[in-house]
Amino acid sequence: MGKKVTISDIARRLDISPSTVSRALSGKPGVSDELRKKILSLAEKMDYIPNVAAKSLKTQKTKTIGLIISDIRNPFFLDVMHGVESVLFPRGYKFIVCSINENLEREAVYLNWLMEHGVEGILASPLTTVSGKHNGRLYKKIARLGIPVVFYDRLIQSVENFDSVVLDNETAIADGAFYLTRKGHKKIGICLARRGLYTIEERYKGFKKAVELLRIETKPEWIIEGKHPLDNSFEKLRKLFNSEERPTAIISTNHPMTRTILKAARACGLKIPEDISVLGFDDLIENELMSPPITTIRQPVMEIGRIATTLLLGRIDGEKGKPSSIKLKAELIERESVKTLMLP
Amino acid sequence: MGKKVTISDIARRLDISPSTVSRALSGKPGVSDELRKKILSLAEKMDYIPNVAAKSLKTQKTKTIGLIISDIRNPFFLDVMHGVESVLFPRGYKFIVCSINENLEREAVYLNWLMEHGVEGILASPLTTVSGKHNGRLYKKIARLGIPVVFYDRLIQSVENFDSVVLDNETAIADGAFYLTRKGHKKIGICLARRGLYTIEERYKGFKKAVELLRIETKPEWIIEGKHPLDNSFEKLRKLFNSEERPTAIISTNHPMTRTILKAARACGLKIPEDISVLGFDDLIENELMSPPITTIRQPVMEIGRIATTLLLGRIDGEKGKPSSIKLKAELIERESVKTLMLP
Repeated sequence: MGKKVTISDIARRLDISPSTVSRALSGKPGVSDELRKKILSLAEKMDYIPNVAAKSLKTQKTKTIGLIISDIRNPFFLDVMHGVESVLFPRGYKFIVCSINENLEREAVYLNWLMEHGVEGILASPLTTVSGKHNGRLYKKIARLGIPVVFYDRLIQSVENFDSVVLDNETAIADGAFYLTRKGHKKIGICLARRGLYTIEERYKGFKKAVELLRIETKPEWIIEGKHPLDNSFEKLRKLFNSEERPTAIISTNHPMTRTILKAARACGLKIPEDISVLGFDDLIENELMSPPITTIRQPVMEIGRIATTLLLGRIDGEKGKPSSIKLKAELIERESVKTLMLP
Repeated sequence: MGKKVTISDIARRLDISPSTVSRALSGKPGVSDELRKKILSLAEKMDYIPNVAAKSLKTQKTKTIGLIISDIRNPFFLDVMHGVESVLFPRGYKFIVCSINENLEREAVYLNWLMEHGVEGILASPLTTVSGKHNGRLYKKIARLGIPVVFYDRLIQSVENFDSVVLDNETAIADGAFYLTRKGHKKIGICLARRGLYTIEERYKGFKKAVELLRIETKPEWIIEGKHPLDNSFEKLRKLFNSEERPTAIISTNHPMTRTILKAARACGLKIPEDISVLGFDDLIENELMSPPITTIRQPVMEIGRIATTLLLGRIDGEKGKPSSIKLKAELIERESVKTLMLP
């Protein structure tokens, strides 16, 4: 494998000064047309590649953004990345993927790398732990340095002045609970994928509001709190499903949690929706192929990725307006995993 | 948003020369301990970030690699990325995701961006079209420039001297066909996700070999050729499933194709495995949750990502040995989507 060809290599071959080569390659004046042609053709022949490091020193443009995602194993992020890329590619931008695996230190490590790397902006789904810890100070520092940050999917509640694109999580779950009551369900449980996270806390708020407004019956044992990874929620669900006192319907709060609910129901020999109704969260093609197909709350995931990226590129281009806080609506996809207990 | 703090800004504040600041920050001698402390603490206070562009000019280390993936919508790549990241993160490396959407021009655009960006290496699942076109010359140019490339999942047949990590695709399908014959199936079809692709052609070879060796009955109409996206294979499958003359079992060649087969069977009212047996390819958690759970050929996807990344980092570190061609074995996961027609 050869060494990288430099401007000096080209200059030496033509017996001219490196600054002349540099002027010719960057299209600046002070070089005759004939010499410029000669230099360009030799550069091509020698496989010369302009060094982005050298270029970016002057222009500060790496044409790269960082994408902080919470867990690379969640298929949610395939659609996010698809949305992000659909906006970046036509603009000549690329992205670095940083999966923080729900770990604050890992998030900080990645944020520092991204700063040092000279990314032009960051799209982040930030972590908040169950005890309320987060990397808000670091995000603020990044913004002070002039690197725009847009939050997507999740916010840090106490950190303002950032653009954000999230789901209207509270309404999404409240609407889901309302749908279940219209189907005759009064005893409803919920599986919270992980306490502390912005999205999950908002979804829980929506559930509690619905419980109050719609006089839904619920119990502490029907509120399953998961951890990461989700193994222990499987055991809790098994216990719940095997008990006499179980709800007639259960609401999920993300796709991995829906999988766990279906697994636990199967392990307990419960039929869906005959023995228990399931309202999923997030929508993969697989939901449609299940028996029964899963009724679910669908987020506009690609849209979240697309809008967040558009906002970020606007900031990179110098847009100085007030931060945008965009909330998108979820959609309830009715399939066959919720039983009609009685007509309203 | 503030401007980025430079070494000169720090020097001006302390009324010393920029080169002294630079020496202090990079830990070089020639600065008193007292002054060094002063400089470091001011740098911290002013949010100074060492510019990777400036650093990489000297060290040529962007600590970044490019990851070329064929289609970001295929969940296969979640596991690939998970494997890649598990090796990169502890070594302080990050990756840029480039989804080429099975498009040669897009692949070339990304490869050029990666070169200009100064990535230290590239992991690629390269495209070969049905007419045999590929970006082999560009990959060779990249290697000549001293940027190591490792192929994973796919190869370009005519491009040698690259490290590679792929599945033993031929054996994977041949073993799958053998399993079906042991279950009593003699009439077998296959769905080729997309002709031309290295993986799909190898899987087809395995099928043809099995047909010959095992005296399997097949027909041209039982060989479904897909395109990208897979819409037209859905129609072809519907036609096949509705005909009198259909095989007793059908083999898939990737996860999106398995989805299409299940959808088409459902649309035709065929029960799996009573009316048609399905042997899937690739394994998501969802396969286990289907009714019936899907018997499938599982690739060691994370392993492919991990081994390819390990090879690449070895090359980046200067490993000069002969190229490695690694072929990994698939595993057949027996569930309930294949009917036993008769005991052998």
